[in-house]
Amino acid sequence: MEIGEFQRRLRDCYEARDRTRGRDATFAWFVEEVGELSRALRSGNRAQMEHEFSDAMAWLVSLATLADIDLEKACSRYAEGCPRCSETPCACPMDRSARFDD
Amino acid sequence: MEIGEFQRRLRDCYEARDRTRGRDATFAWFVEEVGELSRALRSGNRAQMEHEFSDAMAWLVSLATLADIDLEKACSRYAEGCPRCSETPCACPMDRSARFDD
Repeated sequence: MEIGEFQRRLRDCYEARDRTRGRDATFAWFVEEVGELSRALRSGNRAQMEHEFSDAMAWLVSLATLADIDLEKACSRYAEGCPRCSETPCACPMDRSARFDD
Repeated sequence: MEIGEFQRRLRDCYEARDRTRGRDATFAWFVEEVGELSRALRSGNRAQMEHEFSDAMAWLVSLATLADIDLEKACSRYAEGCPRCSETPCACPMDRSARFDD
């Protein structure tokens, strides 16, 4: 499924209630899911990890919808290798890459 | 871009350094990006929000790779409406939905 299609399906499913809840409260729910993901990673339980990764993804995507961000477009900066060094694999110094310092 | 393709491209770009860093440290970097996303949301700056959403997505996807989770498969539970009530839009009670209590 394309990232944009995933965002559209979640929007159709949850946008109305997400807007009622509001952006700050939705961010708080997302962070709660990040906590659950942390617990799942520590458990090592595969089904639980898969479940919590999908929940964290879904809340992050829903939050982007509330902020009117097109994630397909946003993520395109990672489509052609590292956004900083333009290489695949990334050739940035280990302590400094596009994903490390901004 | 499909979710699976996004995960593959990030894996090709970052998996080696992510495995060197380790899962806990990569989780910590992801959470740092979540903090930057929070700040971007408060700033209201569209370019900054787009940037930070893509970074948070990229770190979450990289973390899934380290945990050997196929995100395309994991996210498929959201493909056909709410995983709890199976409706689009979600018809769960506002205080209890598939994304709220598990």
